[in-house]
Amino acid sequence: MDARINVVTLGVRDLARSRRFYCEGLRFHASSAGNDDVVFIDAGGVVLALFSRKALAEDAGLTDDDDAAAHARHRFSGVTISQNVAAKADVDRVLAEAVAAGAKLLQSGHEAFWGGYTGYFADPDGFRWEVAYNPGEIGQSVLP
Amino acid sequence: MDARINVVTLGVRDLARSRRFYCEGLRFHASSAGNDDVVFIDAGGVVLALFSRKALAEDAGLTDDDDAAAHARHRFSGVTISQNVAAKADVDRVLAEAVAAGAKLLQSGHEAFWGGYTGYFADPDGFRWEVAYNPGEIGQSVLP
Repeated sequence: MDARINVVTLGVRDLARSRRFYCEGLRFHASSAGNDDVVFIDAGGVVLALFSRKALAEDAGLTDDDDAAAHARHRFSGVTISQNVAAKADVDRVLAEAVAAGAKLLQSGHEAFWGGYTGYFADPDGFRWEVAYNPGEIGQSVLP
Repeated sequence: MDARINVVTLGVRDLARSRRFYCEGLRFHASSAGNDDVVFIDAGGVVLALFSRKALAEDAGLTDDDDAAAHARHRFSGVTISQNVAAKADVDRVLAEAVAAGAKLLQSGHEAFWGGYTGYFADPDGFRWEVAYNPGEIGQSVLP
């Protein structure tokens, strides 16, 4: 098996709401390959897909035991998605843009113990996005 | 904000177990930029990071309300990671390799309603990986 991720799919509760957040709020460009049931976004080497959470669970052979009460407590999915940027100021700028698009700010930009500068926002379903400036090898290697 | 994902981080319960699964079982190559607390894997345009679930939750400003009972019921995180392959036979081959590495088979390869062929496995924390042959535009565009 190659070490290769091609698509990251977020199972969302309201596809119209998520499409508005990502494609209108954040101005991500939806591929014409999508349709009423799925949104595909080229996220620079990987495709970000938005799909009904219930349908995604069924796709994976599961019953979605979505728990609204746990969701309201901001239950942690166990996954974060990160975007690396070239400077500390870009972290603050991108977080502000996400908040303007309707994201919830979880942590504003701050110095991280690992030597960088980072902050977090949550999308409408509570999925965590990190925006990070990382002066280390890995952080620099992934910049566009 | 650019439409760009650089890192997908899985918050795992036992980093040593996950390192064995991904780096010995699946033979993914860990970057020398990692250390005892974090594993970085070049996953072809995006970095797959393995990090303590508890530490990742704290990183994102959360308390990890990890629920072992729900985990045992295979609670769905809401996120899937997909690898696209060039042929149906590759789906079956990759699924078999993952199972040989210790993954749990969730769905063996089967024809999908969207015209492709797909299957799912779960890593040691239950994170869902899809292996898919997709003859459509998006599927073909992400092949190496």
